[in-house]
Amino acid sequence: MTVTAPAGFDAAGIAAGIKRSGAMDLAVIVNRGPSNAAAAVFTSNRAKANPILWSEQVAADGRVAAIVLNSGGANCFTGPEGFQVTHRTAEAAAGALGVAASDVLVCSTGLIGEQLDGEVVEEGVLSAVNRLSADGGGDAARAIMTTDTRPKTVVVERDRWRIGGMAKGAGMLAPGLATMLVVLTTDAHVASDVLDEALRAATRITFDRLDSDGCMSTNDQVTLMASGASGVAPAPADFAAAVTEACASLAVQLQEDAEGASHDIAIEVRGAVTEDDAVEVGRSVARNNLFKAAIFGNDPNWGRVLAAIGTTNAPFDPYLVDVSMNGVRVCHAGRPDAPREQVDLTPRATHVLIELHAGDASATILTNDLTHDYVHENSAYAS
Amino acid sequence: MTVTAPAGFDAAGIAAGIKRSGAMDLAVIVNRGPSNAAAAVFTSNRAKANPILWSEQVAADGRVAAIVLNSGGANCFTGPEGFQVTHRTAEAAAGALGVAASDVLVCSTGLIGEQLDGEVVEEGVLSAVNRLSADGGGDAARAIMTTDTRPKTVVVERDRWRIGGMAKGAGMLAPGLATMLVVLTTDAHVASDVLDEALRAATRITFDRLDSDGCMSTNDQVTLMASGASGVAPAPADFAAAVTEACASLAVQLQEDAEGASHDIAIEVRGAVTEDDAVEVGRSVARNNLFKAAIFGNDPNWGRVLAAIGTTNAPFDPYLVDVSMNGVRVCHAGRPDAPREQVDLTPRATHVLIELHAGDASATILTNDLTHDYVHENSAYAS
Repeated sequence: MTVTAPAGFDAAGIAAGIKRSGAMDLAVIVNRGPSNAAAAVFTSNRAKANPILWSEQVAADGRVAAIVLNSGGANCFTGPEGFQVTHRTAEAAAGALGVAASDVLVCSTGLIGEQLDGEVVEEGVLSAVNRLSADGGGDAARAIMTTDTRPKTVVVERDRWRIGGMAKGAGMLAPGLATMLVVLTTDAHVASDVLDEALRAATRITFDRLDSDGCMSTNDQVTLMASGASGVAPAPADFAAAVTEACASLAVQLQEDAEGASHDIAIEVRGAVTEDDAVEVGRSVARNNLFKAAIFGNDPNWGRVLAAIGTTNAPFDPYLVDVSMNGVRVCHAGRPDAPREQVDLTPRATHVLIELHAGDASATILTNDLTHDYVHENSAYAS
Repeated sequence: MTVTAPAGFDAAGIAAGIKRSGAMDLAVIVNRGPSNAAAAVFTSNRAKANPILWSEQVAADGRVAAIVLNSGGANCFTGPEGFQVTHRTAEAAAGALGVAASDVLVCSTGLIGEQLDGEVVEEGVLSAVNRLSADGGGDAARAIMTTDTRPKTVVVERDRWRIGGMAKGAGMLAPGLATMLVVLTTDAHVASDVLDEALRAATRITFDRLDSDGCMSTNDQVTLMASGASGVAPAPADFAAAVTEACASLAVQLQEDAEGASHDIAIEVRGAVTEDDAVEVGRSVARNNLFKAAIFGNDPNWGRVLAAIGTTNAPFDPYLVDVSMNGVRVCHAGRPDAPREQVDLTPRATHVLIELHAGDASATILTNDLTHDYVHENSAYAS
């Protein structure tokens, strides 16, 4: 049920004809209320797609009635015509739903630099609105897939209220603020400023710490909409915890479906002076192609970990650092420790622990390995 | 003749038994004078190998009598024992050559985190010193190869003086200051402060702008030694130009032999506000795996160029940017321009031109594509 698990939301996912393959490519999600409170976070990439430019304006007042999402084209760097298509998308949904266009978010994903056909999108929106239903969440989650091999969905249950969610993303997975298209819904009664605070707190330690391939998208958007239909107003801290739980689940699902990956790597950094330092150190490893290729080859090449973290500005002494891989400490105080033959890197789930011995802060970055399949999928994406 | 092309230098390259394969793995280069002036630049990675820790001290006084280089082991993160091996290497060369150990540089390259056998290295040094000759430069260039498929050498001829050089490097090619092991020699009579200035000016616009895989080495070192044997003291500007010419040639040779690469990509950024901005923009593209994989697939995916440069802090408007690939302008003012089918990316030499329209500064970054062979070579390096 995903985004339609909470009361007050209808959704649909259809094949509008945007994708040449004929696969599903357009989703609409509507908040039937009684509340229309919402919050959203957007990519921090300065190269922003047209739907981001539009949606930033729509979300600014903390009120969203509906969201239209399309796969099959990013509508990014498509000029004023491209912006017109985004605007027309919102107008079409607004007209059919009887809401204001300024309350309709638009999200797009696919190839950058190609025009979407405004007429095809508009007809798709009308068709999707006609099929809206309280169990359309599954179709919506499938309609936003690009190179994803499966839909990503989540439901978090609480006492008389719920959070539902869906996500897409398999490449260009690195944080701007968000790192993909995500829609979260809840039937809790929550004001938009509380939604905003909960969403930013959650994305900061979930999607923002997923760095599959170091490439920041132009189209990322995470939206949280509250219908209030349950009549329950949870305590802000409880609500924030539930949002974080939903985001963490979706982040792991995105990692597990990353393009071509054969390992899901959790890089845990401990003993940093600050949490930001821990994130910087973890990210330097997550973005090191030599490390990522070594993990693909089941090679516990800890030297590449140290070479990567040595490029950061985080305060620590490289010659005090310990590195463990899947529970085996292969480097102690900057020297070889257990023989690398003891490390088993054949499981898909991989844990790298880096102990900096500089402070008490920690953070975990999620990434993937660099594989033949990643290169293959991304060398042929446009064709 | 490479480093032995200038008068006053002897060199040797031998198989000392460090590499299990029995290939050549140790080189010695001696400056016979009359001058021993020298300058060196080192990796800015904080994770520094033992030979870097040693050589930074040796080079500090602008005087170098000899340099010992080994492949087959980086001697990095090998603890105090590893530093002892570096020290012993310098002592062995100093004793055999009748110079001070504090005038002997040491360079190492290979796997991080494995001990070098001090006895094997010492015997190798003595054996190499016995074979020093004025035409040993070719052997020296071969002895420092790791995954390099061919030696990289250069000779720059001027009126009665020369610069000779050799380089190794095929992976972990991204600038700290230098990005690889490079030795340059000259028989010009040049004081060490002039050498230093010329070397830093040259590396800044050559090796520092080669960014093959974004991975900064722990062992990079570029050394320039002057024997003064020609008796000619060129004007500093003429000398600096010749050093830059030699470094530029070696940088291109390194790019052309980068691990697994199928394209040599020059990313030219024009219209930046400052040269540093141009470098930041070019580097963001050079380090974008999606862009690099697209070039491997002969796909002129300019959207990935814009997505990459949007992550920088350089001042420009993404919606004013033009992008050309191999002479075809595929993006104009942030919109699609010539059809991507017009771009021929089949040649190995690839030119990407990014016009920011923000100022008058420019810079070119050299990089490579991301290929199956890169992943393969680097997933199996340790085995």
